[in-house]
Amino acid sequence: MTAETAVSKLQSRNGIDFAVADLGLAEFGRKEIRLAEHEMPGLMELRREYAEARPLHGARIAGSLHMTVQTAVLIETLVSLGAQVRWVSCNIFSTQDHAAAATVVGPHGTPEEPKGVPVFAWKGETLQEYWWCTEQLFTFTDENGNTVGPNMILDDGGDATLLVHKGVEFETNGAVPTVDDDDLSVSEEYRIILELLRRSLAEDPKRWTRIAAGIRGVTEETTTGVHRLYQLAEQGKLLFPAINVNDSVTKSKFDNKYGIRHSLIDGLNRATDVLIGGKVAVVCGYGDVGKGSAEALAGQGARVIVTEADPICALQALLEGYQVARLDDVVGQADIVITATGNKDIVTVDHMKRMKHQAILGNVGHFDNEIDMAGLARVPGIRKINIKPQVDEWIFPDGHSILVLSEGRLMNLGNATGHPSFVMSNSFANQTIAQIELFTKHEEYNNDVYRLPKILDEKVARIHVQALGGELTKLTKEQAEYIGVDVEGPFKPEHYRY
Amino acid sequence: MTAETAVSKLQSRNGIDFAVADLGLAEFGRKEIRLAEHEMPGLMELRREYAEARPLHGARIAGSLHMTVQTAVLIETLVSLGAQVRWVSCNIFSTQDHAAAATVVGPHGTPEEPKGVPVFAWKGETLQEYWWCTEQLFTFTDENGNTVGPNMILDDGGDATLLVHKGVEFETNGAVPTVDDDDLSVSEEYRIILELLRRSLAEDPKRWTRIAAGIRGVTEETTTGVHRLYQLAEQGKLLFPAINVNDSVTKSKFDNKYGIRHSLIDGLNRATDVLIGGKVAVVCGYGDVGKGSAEALAGQGARVIVTEADPICALQALLEGYQVARLDDVVGQADIVITATGNKDIVTVDHMKRMKHQAILGNVGHFDNEIDMAGLARVPGIRKINIKPQVDEWIFPDGHSILVLSEGRLMNLGNATGHPSFVMSNSFANQTIAQIELFTKHEEYNNDVYRLPKILDEKVARIHVQALGGELTKLTKEQAEYIGVDVEGPFKPEHYRY
Amino acid sequence: MTAETAVSKLQSRNGIDFAVADLGLAEFGRKEIRLAEHEMPGLMELRREYAEARPLHGARIAGSLHMTVQTAVLIETLVSLGAQVRWVSCNIFSTQDHAAAATVVGPHGTPEEPKGVPVFAWKGETLQEYWWCTEQLFTFTDENGNTVGPNMILDDGGDATLLVHKGVEFETNGAVPTVDDDDLSVSEEYRIILELLRRSLAEDPKRWTRIAAGIRGVTEETTTGVHRLYQLAEQGKLLFPAINVNDSVTKSKFDNKYGIRHSLIDGLNRATDVLIGGKVAVVCGYGDVGKGSAEALAGQGARVIVTEADPICALQALLEGYQVARLDDVVGQADIVITATGNKDIVTVDHMKRMKHQAILGNVGHFDNEIDMAGLARVPGIRKINIKPQVDEWIFPDGHSILVLSEGRLMNLGNATGHPSFVMSNSFANQTIAQIELFTKHEEYNNDVYRLPKILDEKVARIHVQALGGELTKLTKEQAEYIGVDVEGPFKPEHYRY
Amino acid sequence: MTAETAVSKLQSRNGIDFAVADLGLAEFGRKEIRLAEHEMPGLMELRREYAEARPLHGARIAGSLHMTVQTAVLIETLVSLGAQVRWVSCNIFSTQDHAAAATVVGPHGTPEEPKGVPVFAWKGETLQEYWWCTEQLFTFTDENGNTVGPNMILDDGGDATLLVHKGVEFETNGAVPTVDDDDLSVSEEYRIILELLRRSLAEDPKRWTRIAAGIRGVTEETTTGVHRLYQLAEQGKLLFPAINVNDSVTKSKFDNKYGIRHSLIDGLNRATDVLIGGKVAVVCGYGDVGKGSAEALAGQGARVIVTEADPICALQALLEGYQVARLDDVVGQADIVITATGNKDIVTVDHMKRMKHQAILGNVGHFDNEIDMAGLARVPGIRKINIKPQVDEWIFPDGHSILVLSEGRLMNLGNATGHPSFVMSNSFANQTIAQIELFTKHEEYNNDVYRLPKILDEKVARIHVQALGGELTKLTKEQAEYIGVDVEGPFKPEHYRY
Repeated sequence: MTAETAVSKLQSRNGIDFAVADLGLAEFGRKEIRLAEHEMPGLMELRREYAEARPLHGARIAGSLHMTVQTAVLIETLVSLGAQVRWVSCNIFSTQDHAAAATVVGPHGTPEEPKGVPVFAWKGETLQEYWWCTEQLFTFTDENGNTVGPNMILDDGGDATLLVHKGVEFETNGAVPTVDDDDLSVSEEYRIILELLRRSLAEDPKRWTRIAAGIRGVTEETTTGVHRLYQLAEQGKLLFPAINVNDSVTKSKFDNKYGIRHSLIDGLNRATDVLIGGKVAVVCGYGDVGKGSAEALAGQGARVIVTEADPICALQALLEGYQVARLDDVVGQADIVITATGNKDIVTVDHMKRMKHQAILGNVGHFDNEIDMAGLARVPGIRKINIKPQVDEWIFPDGHSILVLSEGRLMNLGNATGHPSFVMSNSFANQTIAQIELFTKHEEYNNDVYRLPKILDEKVARIHVQALGGELTKLTKEQAEYIGVDVEGPFKPEHYRY
Repeated sequence: MTAETAVSKLQSRNGIDFAVADLGLAEFGRKEIRLAEHEMPGLMELRREYAEARPLHGARIAGSLHMTVQTAVLIETLVSLGAQVRWVSCNIFSTQDHAAAATVVGPHGTPEEPKGVPVFAWKGETLQEYWWCTEQLFTFTDENGNTVGPNMILDDGGDATLLVHKGVEFETNGAVPTVDDDDLSVSEEYRIILELLRRSLAEDPKRWTRIAAGIRGVTEETTTGVHRLYQLAEQGKLLFPAINVNDSVTKSKFDNKYGIRHSLIDGLNRATDVLIGGKVAVVCGYGDVGKGSAEALAGQGARVIVTEADPICALQALLEGYQVARLDDVVGQADIVITATGNKDIVTVDHMKRMKHQAILGNVGHFDNEIDMAGLARVPGIRKINIKPQVDEWIFPDGHSILVLSEGRLMNLGNATGHPSFVMSNSFANQTIAQIELFTKHEEYNNDVYRLPKILDEKVARIHVQALGGELTKLTKEQAEYIGVDVEGPFKPEHYRY
Repeated sequence: MTAETAVSKLQSRNGIDFAVADLGLAEFGRKEIRLAEHEMPGLMELRREYAEARPLHGARIAGSLHMTVQTAVLIETLVSLGAQVRWVSCNIFSTQDHAAAATVVGPHGTPEEPKGVPVFAWKGETLQEYWWCTEQLFTFTDENGNTVGPNMILDDGGDATLLVHKGVEFETNGAVPTVDDDDLSVSEEYRIILELLRRSLAEDPKRWTRIAAGIRGVTEETTTGVHRLYQLAEQGKLLFPAINVNDSVTKSKFDNKYGIRHSLIDGLNRATDVLIGGKVAVVCGYGDVGKGSAEALAGQGARVIVTEADPICALQALLEGYQVARLDDVVGQADIVITATGNKDIVTVDHMKRMKHQAILGNVGHFDNEIDMAGLARVPGIRKINIKPQVDEWIFPDGHSILVLSEGRLMNLGNATGHPSFVMSNSFANQTIAQIELFTKHEEYNNDVYRLPKILDEKVARIHVQALGGELTKLTKEQAEYIGVDVEGPFKPEHYRY
Repeated sequence: MTAETAVSKLQSRNGIDFAVADLGLAEFGRKEIRLAEHEMPGLMELRREYAEARPLHGARIAGSLHMTVQTAVLIETLVSLGAQVRWVSCNIFSTQDHAAAATVVGPHGTPEEPKGVPVFAWKGETLQEYWWCTEQLFTFTDENGNTVGPNMILDDGGDATLLVHKGVEFETNGAVPTVDDDDLSVSEEYRIILELLRRSLAEDPKRWTRIAAGIRGVTEETTTGVHRLYQLAEQGKLLFPAINVNDSVTKSKFDNKYGIRHSLIDGLNRATDVLIGGKVAVVCGYGDVGKGSAEALAGQGARVIVTEADPICALQALLEGYQVARLDDVVGQADIVITATGNKDIVTVDHMKRMKHQAILGNVGHFDNEIDMAGLARVPGIRKINIKPQVDEWIFPDGHSILVLSEGRLMNLGNATGHPSFVMSNSFANQTIAQIELFTKHEEYNNDVYRLPKILDEKVARIHVQALGGELTKLTKEQAEYIGVDVEGPFKPEHYRY
C-alpha cells in the first residue's frame, strides 16, 4: 500500500469532525502539526542536533503508537533523522484522522501527491481492522523494490512486538493453536491474532522468523508493554534487545503524571460537560497516572478518594490528603470513577450496578480490561443509548443509568486528544534517542531490557526546562566534587526516585 | 415566526458539529437536555415545588441569554411554571445549535411537529442578525392571535433591556440620532441598533413605549447588565423594576467563580490542546471570574500572574500566592493571557506585539472589548490564519504569531460549552425565583434595582448542597438565639461577604 | 496605678517563657516589637502620614485587645498620633508578657524608668483578675491629676463596652440583680461582673453613667463584639456610636482568613508536634475563620471535613472539595477537631466521649463556649493530665483520652502567638483609622453601628500590596468612566463580596 | 559513665525550656514519649511482633541520631527487642533535653534511680563536646564488666561511622596527620576530630581497629551519610556492611518530604512569627526535602521560587507551577530563603548582602555548610543581635539586616522539634528492621551498601496506612498474576519511582 492508498482509505472515513471535513483533513492536520512543533522542543532540538549526522539513515522503523498530531511530529523527526517509517495506532479509537492524513501527505506533499509516511490507522477501527493494520507495519520496500521487514520497532503497549513473537513461536512450533469457540478464557482479540497468524503460516511458514531476525531492537513506550518485555526477557524468549523508554524519568514521571493531569479532565469535559467541582471522584490506582488523575480532579474542586493495593502508594495518597478506601465501600458515593491501575477487573458489573444515577465511568489505564464492559453488556435488560461518539449511557433495568466513556478504553484519547504536545515531547525525545541508541549500537546490547542512561534523561529535561523559561543553576567544580558528580551530570544515583 | 420556521432556520445552519449532524440536531439536543436535568437540581426542584401553583401562568417572558443546553432546561422550567417564552442568545457565538433545535422541538414535539418555544439564535450570527433576533423577542401572540409585547424580560448583559430603553428614548424624542459614517467613537454595533430603531420608529412611532408600559420587570443575570441597570436607576431612567440576580451569592460567587474554574480550561483545551502545566499564565482581573480563572490554571500546574487595579483584590491575590504585576511588565513572559476584568482596553495591540510566539490570548469577561481586536486587525502586514472554528493564529510581520480565541469574545462559551449545568442550576434557580417574584409582586417594587432576599439565596444553596451529598448541621433553638438568627435562616447579615 | 506598678505586677508573673526570663522581659519585648514594626507597614505608614497632624491628641483610649507584640505596635501608633492609652487583654490567656512589659517600658524608657503605657494584663489571668484589669481601663488621669474616664474605647469582643453598658443599666435601675448561687443558667463569669458592678454601685452610684457620657465612640475588632453592638443598636440601647472594624474587607477577609491560616497550624504544632498530613481534620464552621482553617489543614496534607449550618457556606466548602457532614456522623473518624463557628455548644461531651484516642480538640472562635469544657470536667471518673502549659490530656474512664488545647479558649493565641504581624497590620490600620474618624468626627455619627468607607479599606490594602511587592494596575480615565468609578477608587459597590 | 551521671550532666544544662524546668525534665519527657508512642505505630507494631523473639538480644548498638522524643521511642524499641544501647545526637542543636533525660531515666526508672539508656547529648553542645560525646558511644560494658565496643552502629549523617573509619585509617598508618594552623582548607571541626584521634592513638594504638572488627554493620539514616558510605564502598574502604535506610521509599519519600512539609513552617513560625502568606520564598534544591519545603510554603500562601542544578528536578518544579530561577537573579526579591540542597556554598555572603531587610534565611539540609556563616561573620562592620535562642539578626553596615535561623544548621530541628512522630515512625521502623537484618544476618552481607528489600518497605507502609484509617485493596490471585506479582507484594519493580 502506498501513501496514496492510505489517503483514500482515510478519506473514506472522513466526516468525523466537521472542522476537519470543512478545512480538509490533511490541511487541518498540517496546521496542527505546525503548532505542535512549537510545543515539542525536545523533538525540534533533536532535529537541529542531528541535521547533519542523520543517524537513523538506513533504519526501517515499524511504529505502533497512537496516531495523533504529536506522533506526527515524532514520525517526521524520525524521517528527518534518516529513517524509513511505517505506522499504525496502538488503540482502535486513538487515531486523529487529520493527523494521520497530514502524516501521509507529509510536509512537502499534497493530498493529490502525498510525500509522507504510510499510515494505517483511523479512528474507530474494528479489532479485525486493527490487526490488519498492524500486519501492514512489516512490509517495507527496499531500494530494489523488494519487500523487507523493519529493522526497528517503536512500540506502545507491545502489540507489534507481540505479533512478531507469537509469529515466531507458532512458526517454530509449525502450527497455530486452535481454540474452542466456546472457550470463554480466550478473548475475541486473541482469536483474531490467531486467525491472522494461521493465515500467515499458511502463506509463508518462515515469515515472522525472517522478520524477527532482521530486527535490531524495540523501544517501548508504556508500562504495560514494558511489563510484557520483562516477562519475555525473564523467560529467555525475548528475540531482540529492548529499551524501556517508559521508565526514563522524563517519560514516566512526566507523561504519565502531568499528561494525564491535563488530558483526564479534558476528556471528562468534552464527553460530559459535567461540573467536576464538588463531586466525589474515585481514582483507582495511585501510580503515576493515578497521581496525575487525582491532582487534576482535586485541582478542579472534586473530593478525591483513592483505591490502592500497594501500601506505599496508598500511604502517599493519604499524606496528600486523599481518602484511601476500597471501591466496594465507596462506589455508591462516587459521581466519577476513573481506573488507572494497569491491572484488570477493577470495576465489576456489581460495582456498576451500585453506582449513582448518571455517574461517569472512564478508564485511563492502557488496556480496556480495567472495566468489565463485556459483563455490563450481558446484564439482562440493560439498554445502551449512544449520547455522542465515545459517550454511552447504559440504563439498568431499574431505570438508573451510568455514563461510560470510550467503551472502557483510554478516555483521555477517545474523548479528548490525549496528552498534550509538550508532555509528549519529553516521551518522544526519549523514544528518538532510544531508537538512535539501539539502531546504531545494537551490537552492544543483549536480548534484554535496558533503560536509557540518566545523562540522556537529563538532556531531555534540560531542553524542556529551557523551553519553559526555567533557569538552571550551574554547579561549581567544588560543589560537584563535594557531592561526587560531574559538573554536567548525571546528578543522581540510579536508584533516586525524584 | 413560528417554532417551525425557527427549526428550518436552524437546520439551514447545521453541520456545525458532526455529532449533531449525524444524530439529528434536535434529537441530540434532547439527550443532552435530559442529562443536564439531572445536573440542575435547582431547576428540577422548582418544577416539583410549583407543579401545582404554576405561578408564571400569564407571564410572557422575553429571554436573552446564551442559548445552551442549560438554558434549555431553564426555558422549559419557565414553561412548566406556566409562562409563554421567546428566546435569543445574548452573544453571537454562544448558541449551541442542538440546544436551540431541541428547545424549539420541545420535550413532546418532533422536528416535524415542534411543540416547544420559539428560539431565534444560532452559532455565529452576524451583528445584524443578532439584533434582528433580539427584535423578535418582543412579538408575542395573545390568546386572540394579536401581537403583544412581553410582560417580563430575562436578560443577560442587558441587550433586551437596552433595546426597550433606547426605543422609548427615541420615540419620546421623536427621532433617532444620526451619526457620521466616519465618527470612530460610534461602534458598528451601535450603528446597527440605531438603524433598527430608525426603521421601527418609521413603522410604528409608539411601539417601544407600548412594550415598555407592559413590562412588569426584568431579571438580570450578569455584572455588566447589572451595572447598566444601576446607571439607569441612578439617572431615574429605569422604566420598570429590576432584580439583580448576578449578586445573589449563589450566582456571583458560584457561577462566576466555579463556573469559570471549569469552563476556562475546557475552552483552552478544546481550542489549543496546549499543556497548561509549567506555563506562565497572566489573569487580568481578580474579581470572582479572575479568582476562578487563577484557581483553574494553578490547579493544572501553571504559574499564575495576576493584574489588578483594585488594591483589595490585589492583596487577596498576593495572599493566595500569586504574583501581582502590571501587564506591561510581564506580557513578554506569558504563555497564556486571559482577560477577566469587565473593563475595556485591557490587552492593547502593543501588548499583543510583545507576546511570545504562539502565546494564547482569550477573554472571559462579558464584552469583547477587553482585547483590542479591531486594533490587531489594523496592524500593517498582519495575517490571520484560521486554525479551526474560533481559533485564529495572527501572524505579525516579524513572523511571530499569537493564538486568539473566539475573536476576543467569551472563549469559555465560544471554544467550549460555557458553564456546566450544575453551576448554571444555581444561577437559573435564582432567575426563576426572581421571575416569579417580579411577575407576581411587581406592584410592591419601584423602578429600581433589587437583590433577592437572602433566605431565597440560601434556599437555592440548600438544594444544591443536598444534591452533592452534603449534610447540613441544624442549629438548635438556643444556638440560633445566641447568634440572633432564625433556626431556618437567613443566617448572615446583608453585608456578609462569604 | 502607674506604669511602674504595672511593671512590678508583670515581673511578679514572669518566668512564663525561659527565653524571656533569660533576656529580660522588656528587652526581649522591645526586640520583637522592632521586628514586628517592619511587618506592620499599615501602622508605620499611618505614623508617617500623621506625624505632624497628631489627630488623636486629646484622645483617652481604653483598649481591650489581646496584649501581643502586634498590639504593642498598635498602642505605640496610637500614642504617636497623640493619644493617651490604657490597655488590657480581652482573653485571660492571650497576653504575651514580654509584649506587655515592653509596652509599659515604652520605646524610650527602661524597666527602671518606664515611659510607656499602663497595661493590665498577663498570661493566665483568673476571671476575677481579668475583670479587675478591665475595670482599670476606665481610670485615666487628666492634666490636673484628676481621675477621668476614657473618651474612646477600642474593643475586641466587646467586654469593655459591656462593662460600661451594664454599669449604666444597673445605675439607671439603682440596683444590680441578684442571682441564686445554684442557678446554673448564670455563668461564673457573669457572677463576677455582677459582683464588680455591685461594689462599684455601692462606691459611686453614677460612675458608669459619667464614664459613658464622656465616650465619643467605640471601634470594635471582631465578629462577636460587632454582633453584640448590632443587638444593642437594634434595641436602642447603644450609648455611643460604634465603628464595626471587623467588617472592613481588609479585616474580615484577611485577619479572619489568612491570620488563622497561619496561626492555627502554628498552635497545633507548638501544642502537640503531631503530623497534620494524612490526618482527618474536622473544621466546624466555614465562615472566614473556618475557610482559613480548612485551607491551612489541607495545605499540610490533612483530609478536611467541614460542618456547617449555613447552606451557602456549606456549598462553598463542597465546591472547594471538602466533605460536608454533621459532627455527630464523623466525630469518631477525626484526628483533629477545630471549632470556628462563633456559636456555642458545638462540641458536646457526647462528641468528646466518641473521639479517637489522643484526638486533638481546639477552638479558634472568639468565645470559649464552642466546646463544653464544663461538661467535660463533670464526666464521672475523668482525669486531666497537664502535658505542658495550655495542653491537657483528658483521660476518660474507659482509658481513651483526648488532648484539649488552651482549655477550649482561642488556641491560636493560647498555644501560639496569634495572628502574625502582617495580618494584624491590616486590622490595626483599620482600627487606627476608625479611632481617628470617631474621635474627630463623632458629632457626625448617631448611636449606631457604622462601617468604614470603602476608600479607606482600599487605602489599607494598597499599603500592604506595596509592602508585598505587588504592582497595581492604574485605570485610565476612560476605563474608570466605563465602569463608573473614580480613577482613585473606590472600585466596587458596597454589596461586593470579594 | 552510667545513666546516673548522664542525668547529672543533663540537669546541669537544664533551664532550656521553662515548661521543662517547671515540670521536671524527665517527667515531661516521659509524658511526651507516651503521647509519641501513639503516633509511632510502626515502632509499636514491631515491639508487639518481636515481643517474644527479641531478635536484638546481644546487640550493642551505638546510636548517633538527633536525640528527640521520637528517637526516645526508637531507643526504647531497640531495648525492648533485646539490645544494649548508647546514644548521642548527630547535631549540636538537635537534642531535646527532656527527651534525653527521660531516655536516661527510662520507662521504669526515676530521676533518682534511672533505669534507661546512657545518652550523651544536650541542646547546644560545642563542637568539642559533640565529638567527646560521640567518642562515648564506643565504650559498652559487657556482662563481665569489661569495656567492649559496639557490634552495631545506627548512624545519621555518618559521624559515628566516620570516627571509626578515620580511627582505623590513622591506626593503620600509625599516625594522625598534622595540619597547619593557618590552612583554611581544614575546617575547625576536622581539627577537633584529628585531635581526638591523636589522643586516642597515643593512649591505645589499636583501639579503633579493635572496635571496627567487632562491628557487624551500620544502618544509615540520611542522604548525606549514605553518600559517604557509597564513596567508602567504591574506594573499597568500607569496613563493615551498611544498610542504606535513607533510600527505603518509606524513609526518603516520607521523612524527607512530608516531615519537612511539617517542620519547616513550624520552625519558621516559632522562630519569627512572620506571616508566610503573600511572601516570596526561595527554596534552594528540589529533591525530596525541597519538594516538601515548597509544598509547605505554597500551602501557606507564599509564592515559591525554586533553584535547581538537576534539570529533571527543575522540570518537576516547573510543572508543579513554581518559577525556577538562579539564586543570583532572585535573591533580592526573597522574603524567605531556605536551603535544601545537600550541597555546599549555596547562599554566599554576596547573596546575604543583597537580601531584603529582615529577610529570613534558614537551612534544612543536613550539614551547616549550605550557608556561608563563617563568611557572614567576617563581613567588616557586621553586628549580630540575638533575638532569642537560635534566631539571630545580622545587621550589615548599611543598616539592613537579615534573620538567620539556628546559625545555619537544620532549622527545623533547631527552631522547632524536627519531624513529627508519625513520619519518624516510618524511618525508624525501617531502622529497626535494618538493625535486625544486619545483626542477625551479617554473614550474608559483604562490606557494601545495601537497601532493604521492598517487601519490608511495604510492610512499614502497611502499618502506617492502617494507622491512618486507609483501607487497602486486596489483589485477587488473577490480578496479581496478571501484573506478575505475588498477592502479598512486593508490588513494584526495583526501579519504580513512586
